[in-house]
Amino acid sequence: MTLPAEFHDIAKRVNNWGRWGADDEIGTLNLITDEVVRGAAAEIRSGRRVPLALPLKEDGVQVGMIPGRINPLHTMVQINQELFGPGTVACSDDAVSMGLQAGTHWDALTHVSHSGRIYNGRPAGTITAHGRAEFSGIDKATPVVSRGVLLDVARAKGLDRLPGGHAVTPADLAEAEEFGRVTVRPGDIVLVRTGQIQVYLAGDRHGYGFPSPGLSVRTPEWFHARDVAAVANDTLTFEIFPPEIENLWLPVHALDLVEMGMHQGQNWNLEKLSTACAEEGRYAFLLSAMPEPFVGGTGTPVAPVAVL
Amino acid sequence: MTLPAEFHDIAKRVNNWGRWGADDEIGTLNLITDEVVRGAAAEIRSGRRVPLALPLKEDGVQVGMIPGRINPLHTMVQINQELFGPGTVACSDDAVSMGLQAGTHWDALTHVSHSGRIYNGRPAGTITAHGRAEFSGIDKATPVVSRGVLLDVARAKGLDRLPGGHAVTPADLAEAEEFGRVTVRPGDIVLVRTGQIQVYLAGDRHGYGFPSPGLSVRTPEWFHARDVAAVANDTLTFEIFPPEIENLWLPVHALDLVEMGMHQGQNWNLEKLSTACAEEGRYAFLLSAMPEPFVGGTGTPVAPVAVL
Amino acid sequence: MTLPAEFHDIAKRVNNWGRWGADDEIGTLNLITDEVVRGAAAEIRSGRRVPLALPLKEDGVQVGMIPGRINPLHTMVQINQELFGPGTVACSDDAVSMGLQAGTHWDALTHVSHSGRIYNGRPAGTITAHGRAEFSGIDKATPVVSRGVLLDVARAKGLDRLPGGHAVTPADLAEAEEFGRVTVRPGDIVLVRTGQIQVYLAGDRHGYGFPSPGLSVRTPEWFHARDVAAVANDTLTFEIFPPEIENLWLPVHALDLVEMGMHQGQNWNLEKLSTACAEEGRYAFLLSAMPEPFVGGTGTPVAPVAVL
Amino acid sequence: MTLPAEFHDIAKRVNNWGRWGADDEIGTLNLITDEVVRGAAAEIRSGRRVPLALPLKEDGVQVGMIPGRINPLHTMVQINQELFGPGTVACSDDAVSMGLQAGTHWDALTHVSHSGRIYNGRPAGTITAHGRAEFSGIDKATPVVSRGVLLDVARAKGLDRLPGGHAVTPADLAEAEEFGRVTVRPGDIVLVRTGQIQVYLAGDRHGYGFPSPGLSVRTPEWFHARDVAAVANDTLTFEIFPPEIENLWLPVHALDLVEMGMHQGQNWNLEKLSTACAEEGRYAFLLSAMPEPFVGGTGTPVAPVAVL
Repeated sequence: MTLPAEFHDIAKRVNNWGRWGADDEIGTLNLITDEVVRGAAAEIRSGRRVPLALPLKEDGVQVGMIPGRINPLHTMVQINQELFGPGTVACSDDAVSMGLQAGTHWDALTHVSHSGRIYNGRPAGTITAHGRAEFSGIDKATPVVSRGVLLDVARAKGLDRLPGGHAVTPADLAEAEEFGRVTVRPGDIVLVRTGQIQVYLAGDRHGYGFPSPGLSVRTPEWFHARDVAAVANDTLTFEIFPPEIENLWLPVHALDLVEMGMHQGQNWNLEKLSTACAEEGRYAFLLSAMPEPFVGGTGTPVAPVAVL
Repeated sequence: MTLPAEFHDIAKRVNNWGRWGADDEIGTLNLITDEVVRGAAAEIRSGRRVPLALPLKEDGVQVGMIPGRINPLHTMVQINQELFGPGTVACSDDAVSMGLQAGTHWDALTHVSHSGRIYNGRPAGTITAHGRAEFSGIDKATPVVSRGVLLDVARAKGLDRLPGGHAVTPADLAEAEEFGRVTVRPGDIVLVRTGQIQVYLAGDRHGYGFPSPGLSVRTPEWFHARDVAAVANDTLTFEIFPPEIENLWLPVHALDLVEMGMHQGQNWNLEKLSTACAEEGRYAFLLSAMPEPFVGGTGTPVAPVAVL
Repeated sequence: MTLPAEFHDIAKRVNNWGRWGADDEIGTLNLITDEVVRGAAAEIRSGRRVPLALPLKEDGVQVGMIPGRINPLHTMVQINQELFGPGTVACSDDAVSMGLQAGTHWDALTHVSHSGRIYNGRPAGTITAHGRAEFSGIDKATPVVSRGVLLDVARAKGLDRLPGGHAVTPADLAEAEEFGRVTVRPGDIVLVRTGQIQVYLAGDRHGYGFPSPGLSVRTPEWFHARDVAAVANDTLTFEIFPPEIENLWLPVHALDLVEMGMHQGQNWNLEKLSTACAEEGRYAFLLSAMPEPFVGGTGTPVAPVAVL
Repeated sequence: MTLPAEFHDIAKRVNNWGRWGADDEIGTLNLITDEVVRGAAAEIRSGRRVPLALPLKEDGVQVGMIPGRINPLHTMVQINQELFGPGTVACSDDAVSMGLQAGTHWDALTHVSHSGRIYNGRPAGTITAHGRAEFSGIDKATPVVSRGVLLDVARAKGLDRLPGGHAVTPADLAEAEEFGRVTVRPGDIVLVRTGQIQVYLAGDRHGYGFPSPGLSVRTPEWFHARDVAAVANDTLTFEIFPPEIENLWLPVHALDLVEMGMHQGQNWNLEKLSTACAEEGRYAFLLSAMPEPFVGGTGTPVAPVAVL
């Protein structure tokens, strides 16, 4: 089995290998310039801060569908322990075991490979158990602070949430842009709201992941044309799942991460942000979404915040 | 053994229990108002972003001194795995086991207790293995985005770093304020630079933690008087270690976290920020330092960023 | 809510506190004397070895019903890594995160407490996050090698497995003894087969745990009268679940572990042993079931083996 | 760099590939027949049981020399938790994160590869992060119960422990055989005592691993000639470390595991066994050393016991 010609055609059109030099490890994060950040600062008007991370807990969004990606097991190593003797100040300390992509997270560019390659044409074999990702590990990412734009696809269509089988198309994105009276600019981080996370928030952990609305294989070209820095949404799989084209699994991952070098975010809770943007009548803000710098990590938990 | 009268005297002066109501769980984070955040936005001028987290890796800052607080063990669960059949897009996924306070982190208000109490007078016994912190867990924190101020104590004194036995006093903080021509305001997050993290960065993992410069037991009153929202620095122990007063261990922790309800940050790498502030000639910026929302967590890794 | 009088009556009859001195931490393991072990050796006739542990894997018997008790997350830290340079011998290494009682395991005597006490009358408060179990941790257990006896309750009744609601009674145990033409002796480790593990082995992970046959609250007296050293079976909960007496949860745990000081084993796969014993026409053997010596552990994985 | 001719010469002489068929995954464990086990049972005379595992704890034998091989981080997930309401039976539960080869352990045959091959000529590439070891994982091992023989090399020489630079030779093994008036037989598990673990037991964690006495590259032929089933000793590295032949790292691992298909045990505490054997004047016993069946594991903790 090989990837179909259709995939390779799109791949050619969105490919950024070499664009920022042969040594580049961060892809479209290069598009976040100081000027872009100054523009982001200009979007802060009310000062309202909206957090976008799901709580990290044992009954998180993972249900065993993806092998090895466990919800956080959060345990105590000290509880009110008077380490320096009776009557002294007492300490509590905790530990965690978890999949780095278990909850609200960023995919590193190395999260997927295809045809033996990762972003910028490097061999997939540079990812090992010993060294993890030698190139483009999540610790290489420059600070992810930029202008954020919410494309509220569900709200633009007057829906609470998109149905499970809905592939979000470029037309949907343009519609949401128009709805929000906002224009996506180079260096922006685009948040695409489907409303799917409501399924999880309502307690249906199994229904959340599958079937899921998500980005269509047509969207990478749209993001590429606009020189977007990164994209995140409120689903487990990011792209529509099961896929639009039979047997073509995770094509959006391969196009975004490998070809464009564009980081992807998943399981972002955009519900409160949707309300806040609707209330304030504006869909751009400063977004801070700093990866935890796991050396060689192929993903990372993230606690993003939109500052309106 | 009990805590000395001297401790209780200071405790009385900085106590914030009840100040934001009996139900409050976040303490001085209440001081970060929308207005404060708008003020923080106004500090963004160049758009330069400076990350403040140490890399997360197995040879991190922990050396076994604090039981159970292990550096990240970062392992692979998938490496270029063609989950959907040969020739398909291949996935890499990783997992981690770590102490939540192993690297660059925030202490939750529940990280310490004294005399059986945590912040706002609640019983320390509300922290259990089963539920972790019932009150004031790190997941309760409102978004930690505010104006940040660097008090570069080492640079103000013309030193690369403070010597191991140096307790940072209110006079030192005031000197750094003056040096930076900046005035700490209510709702600010104050970063205190000692330079101690250079010891770790130079490869001396054991020398980093002990002996260490750090905040004096006199500083909580200074922070309280200025209504600071949170304080972080570049040491393992936050406060001077070993302590100033014999057998009075972790008094600053007890005063900041339990009495004032003020979150503390440790192991923040302030070296590049020091250079950036010196270059730009200003010591205030927007700081985003979002906790990972571990439910009931007594601490959390954080990847802070200063936006100048 | 308090434990009913009926519970306390049985408790009084099976209580072993002080029997082996005030300092004792191992309870009925004291009954495994050198003589008992010589008797166990005499049971080895064919030399057939039957392993009794379930495979340790991510889709093990835990399904999230018991908070924090996760199946093994088994990850790689090295894969064919030529640590000493290209062309040298290459190493593979792995790591695990798991609940100590996730799979085939022993409960330590400290796994449960009631009325504030653990075995031998010690305060339950001696179990802390810092030190784990100060007394009767699983590392304190003396070697668990003794004569094993299979009481094949299901086979004695001509059943593949007992129905979910079946409480195994003393009469059932006596029936299985007679069926196996074996007499339980002091120091024996008794394995009680219900056949329930077939539910798990057939792929029904959720059906396995609940409802489950298991030991009746009447069995501790039977084991006490025979001076049994330990008991294990092939269920998740050990005792019948839900319980026989409304609102009296885990009474068998409390009687066996706290009152008698008798270790319990769960999730033991007794299917092949059942076949082997039937084939050889004898139900006694040498059993080796060594705990992993986790210091202060309240339980441990175990890989038991019957040697016929 | 390639392995020297000398290595390949020995490899040829000890190679067991195909000996038990092309499908074999367990190597010399095939030599433990029912008859061998009956012979082991005949060695039980006093009934004395001697445990051979080190306690599993955070300050175990690992000191960071081997990346990713962490000592157990043992944490609590429940402490006396009344899961079914106030006044009910209370539960304590714990969890662990650890390297599978962190303490007293067995190497699976897949723990090392050389020249792209693992035992029985299979490709090393069959070990992946996704599936771990597809062949010869530790879960494939048949029950490790056999006759055990202690070759007390240190005691035979009248030493407390061998010096760091001592390579244990075939002559040393023969000397210990004679000293113990015991003859190694096919199917035996041989325990080789150097006394090195005293360094760890005395508190010198760093001195224990390096320099270390250990098995010479000449010993695999000796074990092969006697058709030994498995070998374990009381060192971190099993073989002499640093190695006898410059730049030939881990040759014994490669010969034992890859060529012969013979499992190796490390960090076994043989001190009490040495005393017991000396007291009883005999060096053979029944040994039970069951691997925990981690699916695809390249190693496993083990809690061995010798029954004299």
